[in-house]
Amino acid sequence: MNFYAEVISVGTELLLGSIANTDAQFISEALSAVGVDVLYHTAVGDNPQRLRSVTEIARQRANLILYVGGLGPTYDDMTKEVVARAFGRELVFHPEIFEEIRRCFADIFHRPMPACNRQQAFLPAGCEIFHNPVGTAPGCCFEEGGVTVMMLPGVPHECRHMLHHQALPWLRRHTEQVILSHDLRIFGLSEPQVQELLAPVMNEAVNPSLAPYAKTGEVLLRLTAKAESEAACTARMAPLLSEVRRRLGDYCYGEDIDGLEYAAVRLLKEKHCTCAAAESCTGGLIAKRITDVPGASAVFRGGIVSYTNEVKAAVLGVPQALLDTYGAVSQPVAAAMADGARRVTGADLAVSSTGVAGPDRDDRGNEVGTVFVGLSTPEGTFVRSLSLGTGRQRVRTTAAHHAFDLIRRYLAGLDVETNPR
Amino acid sequence: MNFYAEVISVGTELLLGSIANTDAQFISEALSAVGVDVLYHTAVGDNPQRLRSVTEIARQRANLILYVGGLGPTYDDMTKEVVARAFGRELVFHPEIFEEIRRCFADIFHRPMPACNRQQAFLPAGCEIFHNPVGTAPGCCFEEGGVTVMMLPGVPHECRHMLHHQALPWLRRHTEQVILSHDLRIFGLSEPQVQELLAPVMNEAVNPSLAPYAKTGEVLLRLTAKAESEAACTARMAPLLSEVRRRLGDYCYGEDIDGLEYAAVRLLKEKHCTCAAAESCTGGLIAKRITDVPGASAVFRGGIVSYTNEVKAAVLGVPQALLDTYGAVSQPVAAAMADGARRVTGADLAVSSTGVAGPDRDDRGNEVGTVFVGLSTPEGTFVRSLSLGTGRQRVRTTAAHHAFDLIRRYLAGLDVETNPR
Repeated sequence: MNFYAEVISVGTELLLGSIANTDAQFISEALSAVGVDVLYHTAVGDNPQRLRSVTEIARQRANLILYVGGLGPTYDDMTKEVVARAFGRELVFHPEIFEEIRRCFADIFHRPMPACNRQQAFLPAGCEIFHNPVGTAPGCCFEEGGVTVMMLPGVPHECRHMLHHQALPWLRRHTEQVILSHDLRIFGLSEPQVQELLAPVMNEAVNPSLAPYAKTGEVLLRLTAKAESEAACTARMAPLLSEVRRRLGDYCYGEDIDGLEYAAVRLLKEKHCTCAAAESCTGGLIAKRITDVPGASAVFRGGIVSYTNEVKAAVLGVPQALLDTYGAVSQPVAAAMADGARRVTGADLAVSSTGVAGPDRDDRGNEVGTVFVGLSTPEGTFVRSLSLGTGRQRVRTTAAHHAFDLIRRYLAGLDVETNPR
Repeated sequence: MNFYAEVISVGTELLLGSIANTDAQFISEALSAVGVDVLYHTAVGDNPQRLRSVTEIARQRANLILYVGGLGPTYDDMTKEVVARAFGRELVFHPEIFEEIRRCFADIFHRPMPACNRQQAFLPAGCEIFHNPVGTAPGCCFEEGGVTVMMLPGVPHECRHMLHHQALPWLRRHTEQVILSHDLRIFGLSEPQVQELLAPVMNEAVNPSLAPYAKTGEVLLRLTAKAESEAACTARMAPLLSEVRRRLGDYCYGEDIDGLEYAAVRLLKEKHCTCAAAESCTGGLIAKRITDVPGASAVFRGGIVSYTNEVKAAVLGVPQALLDTYGAVSQPVAAAMADGARRVTGADLAVSSTGVAGPDRDDRGNEVGTVFVGLSTPEGTFVRSLSLGTGRQRVRTTAAHHAFDLIRRYLAGLDVETNPR
């Protein structure tokens, strides 16, 4: 079966611009990865007539319709009702789903279930139920007149969970062609630099194809192959993959990995090393990102967010003389912060950040984007001096990237002081 | 004129999920603010047949169509061509626009203009030109058969600029009605609980209208009024707003505010207080969120991410006996962490978090979602004992909410130990 999909997002908050339609984005990304062509996105408000009318349009131009949102327990949640009617199905009460919802309140939410949640146990007759172990809104799937209909909850983490555990496996079972993608993650090169390095292979690459995407402070390069089986995809992709990796060298930090913090944690585990962080301009972001990685507790001992000079001196032991002479945003202070974090936490390695995230220059006249990122190791302390441009969040994110890149390069035995090109 | 709008985003990258449709979001937000009802969002790829067909649908159901994207100089940029033909207009070459594009290359990009950019100087006959001082793609506006058509570039900063400087002023000149919204932010009640509390006023609320939105761990409630002027909107909304605030009581933490951390920072500034954080399960998220608030450096002294017991003992001075007797995830340790952070940073207040974010139980058998959030103050130390359910990110986000809520309640003179309902 070749699927041509339309994603219909239901929710007035989308039309008011209160939230971006990120559900449609990650659904589309995931569908593309299993070989489904997404032809249209539609967003419509919590309005039964308009939802009905976009449904009538979608069934004329797509053979897979994914509805997202409007599965909640309140009066403005009407997706199941409107879609079931449009496809000529009744809504049927499922006592076992009602029991799941009740248990969700008892075991997870620890509070009584409001009466309105009963409505969530009604589903279109004859559907396949998509269970929702992370929330109360079940989804479903059914086929009617050559059109496959799926409904997923709108809450992003519930939507992702159901997509990955129910909708995608269902689609893989019903699709003939296999699409396989690998994402290479690149730090230290801009998107045009990646394109330049890869130009000779990029132009010829059709199947497998090669597409770079700029992310904040880094680049993602996606290789995609289509074939009749996963093994055939892998074989088709192998020569290009190795040629691309050769060209990128150690700017490529991983394949199918979620970010630099994952590369750092993996290497820390492999080398049985622990780390710590002393953060000024990143304000906790380095610690937050490293502890986002499940299992980080095996390698991360802790961090200090030293937002004031007093905390830098008292907790991290940064000499007052350094602060007075060079200022907080300086190479020597970045080094002393990293050394201090290593000492007070007892970690093998420690990273540090100090800089000007903006919106304004600091009181010593350092430009926005001036950042020093340090790494303290048993073999010495290294500091990168950076100019990261403007944009508070972008500066902070990129500074954190550099901290993880320092850990990665040090543990992989690469040149740590290499500044990005 | 009352406008009913459809936003049509053109670009295959949207359907591949490479980027989120943030243009549609900020356009919708801006249109709502000038009283335009956005009824539909559509996204379609760089495909002339499908763009033509969504155009035919849109002109039947909207009297304002905003096209976004596909105004660039390359072969897959076809919005002007397809839309002009659909509305029966020729494309006309504008020498003065060609000159603007040429100057943009000379003065801003400092490189010669490629030949393909000439195509950008063609615009539908009889249109009003939307000039683009920040890029090469001009936009335009025309009216045909009762439908107003606008075209804006897809590059977000160009789109925003043209929207604010050309499209919105045009719409304000042609709209009679003003829309005003206020967002109330609520912590400690679930969305159904909010609906229950507000049921008597919710059902009657049409203009102004009242709509709750569930966010991770909190609820947003939007009041929206339409009237002939902003003052009339405010007057129309006032009785409902005060009734809603009365019913929500101190569960409502702010109006038109970005989150609990903003409420906490605002109160800290007002009361001339500083704060600090000692984080275990939130792993730096509390510090990260508070330093996301511009100007946080005036009130935030720093934080300690004590991911191991050694760091809890060595840096925060948590007595080893407490760790041995009660375990790291316990009420007494949460209290000692908060006290320790206050002591070592010299802050007036300090919050703490310790708990099990998951994916697994801790080694003492504490369930995922068991979290203690502490607040140390000159008047004593308070700890909330929480069961936050599953989902690593959700547990961490909600735990951080509680930390900010403790600061807010303490500084506002409310009962700090109130657990949410």
